[in-house]
Amino acid sequence: MPGPDYSTISFLTDYGLADEFVGVVKGVIRQLAPETVVIDISHDVAAHDTRAGSLVLTRAVQYLPDGIVLAIVDPGVGTARRAIAVEVSNDSCHLIFVGPDNGLLAPAVAMSGGAVRAFQLTNTELHLDAPGATFAGRDIFAPVAARLSAGFPLDLVGEPIDPNSLLPAVLPLSQSEHGELQGEILWVDRFGNAQINIDPVEVEPFGDVVSLRFGAANRTARVVRAYGELRTGEIGLVVDSYGLFSISLDRRPASTDLGLAEGMAVTIAMAEGGSAGNGVGQSTPITLGRRPES
Amino acid sequence: MPGPDYSTISFLTDYGLADEFVGVVKGVIRQLAPETVVIDISHDVAAHDTRAGSLVLTRAVQYLPDGIVLAIVDPGVGTARRAIAVEVSNDSCHLIFVGPDNGLLAPAVAMSGGAVRAFQLTNTELHLDAPGATFAGRDIFAPVAARLSAGFPLDLVGEPIDPNSLLPAVLPLSQSEHGELQGEILWVDRFGNAQINIDPVEVEPFGDVVSLRFGAANRTARVVRAYGELRTGEIGLVVDSYGLFSISLDRRPASTDLGLAEGMAVTIAMAEGGSAGNGVGQSTPITLGRRPES
Amino acid sequence: MPGPDYSTISFLTDYGLADEFVGVVKGVIRQLAPETVVIDISHDVAAHDTRAGSLVLTRAVQYLPDGIVLAIVDPGVGTARRAIAVEVSNDSCHLIFVGPDNGLLAPAVAMSGGAVRAFQLTNTELHLDAPGATFAGRDIFAPVAARLSAGFPLDLVGEPIDPNSLLPAVLPLSQSEHGELQGEILWVDRFGNAQINIDPVEVEPFGDVVSLRFGAANRTARVVRAYGELRTGEIGLVVDSYGLFSISLDRRPASTDLGLAEGMAVTIAMAEGGSAGNGVGQSTPITLGRRPES
Repeated sequence: MPGPDYSTISFLTDYGLADEFVGVVKGVIRQLAPETVVIDISHDVAAHDTRAGSLVLTRAVQYLPDGIVLAIVDPGVGTARRAIAVEVSNDSCHLIFVGPDNGLLAPAVAMSGGAVRAFQLTNTELHLDAPGATFAGRDIFAPVAARLSAGFPLDLVGEPIDPNSLLPAVLPLSQSEHGELQGEILWVDRFGNAQINIDPVEVEPFGDVVSLRFGAANRTARVVRAYGELRTGEIGLVVDSYGLFSISLDRRPASTDLGLAEGMAVTIAMAEGGSAGNGVGQSTPITLGRRPES
Repeated sequence: MPGPDYSTISFLTDYGLADEFVGVVKGVIRQLAPETVVIDISHDVAAHDTRAGSLVLTRAVQYLPDGIVLAIVDPGVGTARRAIAVEVSNDSCHLIFVGPDNGLLAPAVAMSGGAVRAFQLTNTELHLDAPGATFAGRDIFAPVAARLSAGFPLDLVGEPIDPNSLLPAVLPLSQSEHGELQGEILWVDRFGNAQINIDPVEVEPFGDVVSLRFGAANRTARVVRAYGELRTGEIGLVVDSYGLFSISLDRRPASTDLGLAEGMAVTIAMAEGGSAGNGVGQSTPITLGRRPES
Repeated sequence: MPGPDYSTISFLTDYGLADEFVGVVKGVIRQLAPETVVIDISHDVAAHDTRAGSLVLTRAVQYLPDGIVLAIVDPGVGTARRAIAVEVSNDSCHLIFVGPDNGLLAPAVAMSGGAVRAFQLTNTELHLDAPGATFAGRDIFAPVAARLSAGFPLDLVGEPIDPNSLLPAVLPLSQSEHGELQGEILWVDRFGNAQINIDPVEVEPFGDVVSLRFGAANRTARVVRAYGELRTGEIGLVVDSYGLFSISLDRRPASTDLGLAEGMAVTIAMAEGGSAGNGVGQSTPITLGRRPES
């Protein structure tokens, strides 16, 4: 019976594409695992932003093929932070995550089913000799990921470690207080949609038209299924492709037009004076300069 | 007799490379069509700009291998706009275009020989279940493109539709009036070359040195074959790699130095006071601030 | 006995990723060499910057797999500059470089062992017919690279030329004068680290804490192995992944914070008033506005 298919390496970094970092890692992989296919998840995670990287990885992981997940956002490169490989194996997927133990991998490991085994990459025979200690992606993570992809046994990459000892990520949770839902903008995408950590199910009791507060603004937003259902200037709460809400406009970047940014607090509340009965009529297009009415 | 080779998916979007969208689509493809090779045409089409996307696709299509062309610039995602697959099959190529029916695909379909068959992607059994309707690239287009690449029959992706019912793109045509050629800047490339929709053959009667008007400027330009033939500051009309003219400078971005942008009107006319006989001597390097002499 | 494995094309350009240039080249390669795998080194070399391109290639080349190195930064496209293929074959690697003869390839050829044979790409039967002469990447370099990757004999791509006739690159060398080391910033990477062309071995006699002069600034810097060893604001000389020094801060872009840019002169000297004995205590965090004390 053949084992899991590890012939894909899904690859995430904060390296950017201007320098040769990503290409060099792929060059190393190609030499050690010629049959492996590399899929780029993203290389434009903000430099050193392990939280943003962990969120990208968490959104993507359920759509990745079985294989190796090579994820590197590593501000502590060359210091005592551990380099690790973490196995997730269950009915849904067979993945080995390779990267630094700094919280980057933790949410995606949890999302995909939880760690079965974990190892510290202490077997230096697998690493490349290097003149400096600043490019662990090339010298440590890539050769280990490549070899694992080519069938090298996981338990020979280094010392086993307790999966419970892995550094967790601190991701914000939404809260319900005084009948309001308090969340945070997790991600602003290319189109200016602002994803918030609030489950649409929690908003259902409020109906299709709700109050939306962020910064000094107090607006009305309408719950819709597609951007195209929104009128010009109307603010939407769209169930996004990951099942969370995003604050969106139709064919306009909500982030720019409304002044939204990652990390900003957002509150959703029952619309003022209104039930959800005829919500469409109650939602109003945005008016620039409108003041909060608290 | 083997059928056409659909083992390549050429992939164009306005997703950008910062978010995980492109990587997730490739993850879906890899799971459904492990042998397929994906070629990225571009993912930096301006957000929602179906016209720019259709132009990129039209320029690229004649150089793409047989296979699937997965093109997604889709501001109407989740609304009534149709998701389609369009077959082009002739002596030159065998392509199946997959994307939204919003004009994005039409010029490239025409350029590559015209549609033989078209289908609406109504067979939802081929699609992924999704919590929201905002990422058709992942949930509808990618799985259909992957399956077609792996040999799934085109006529099972959904209901057949009339190729003549596909939404055409509205691309600008150049005009000849009062002995002048009036065109438009279609594209400014990475190097600042500004491609215009004027066929060099139409300009031949004017000779090698012509008048060039755009915005408030009236300049002299010289028809050359290579950027390197231009003197410093001299404006060139270079026959570009697609057989159209581009307004160019040598090793300088014409777009920035001359204030050119996509969509800007451009007029080419006989050089003032001169035949084409000794054109080289008549072309003059640009002078900043020069006024039109109309 | 099988020959060298040319099944990888490592690909470097200044094309950017917004236009379709890179995708079109890959489309051409896929048609002529369907089994070839393309690895992108970078496509964000600054437009026309052959020096920067040659440095990227030189840093990357030792990590590339055997195969073709397709490198295109080609401001003289369409002029008399030669299109070439250069073979490097030795105990360490088997590479064929394909690109323009403008100094772009020379340092990487030298770094990987030196040219064995060189040819000018004069066999036009291998090239694509093209309406214009501005896209040699698509029409000349890509089809030749693809065919070489698929096993086409190198000596049939055109006329042999003397490897010594290839245009060399002019790369800056560091100098030692009056007991000081004078170098130059070669490269600022994504993270703001500024690589300088000074060998750490030359700095060893100065100890772990040195004087660092650039522009109008005179600072103290500490030699460390990892960014994370630096205190907030402390300037580091870090032995980078290529064995050269980079001027770095911990989790901050040194380029932005210190005003460093490619090409800037840098001088390293013995720290004022101090031996290297207890260097750590002598290095001081940066103070904005500090004046040179020459």
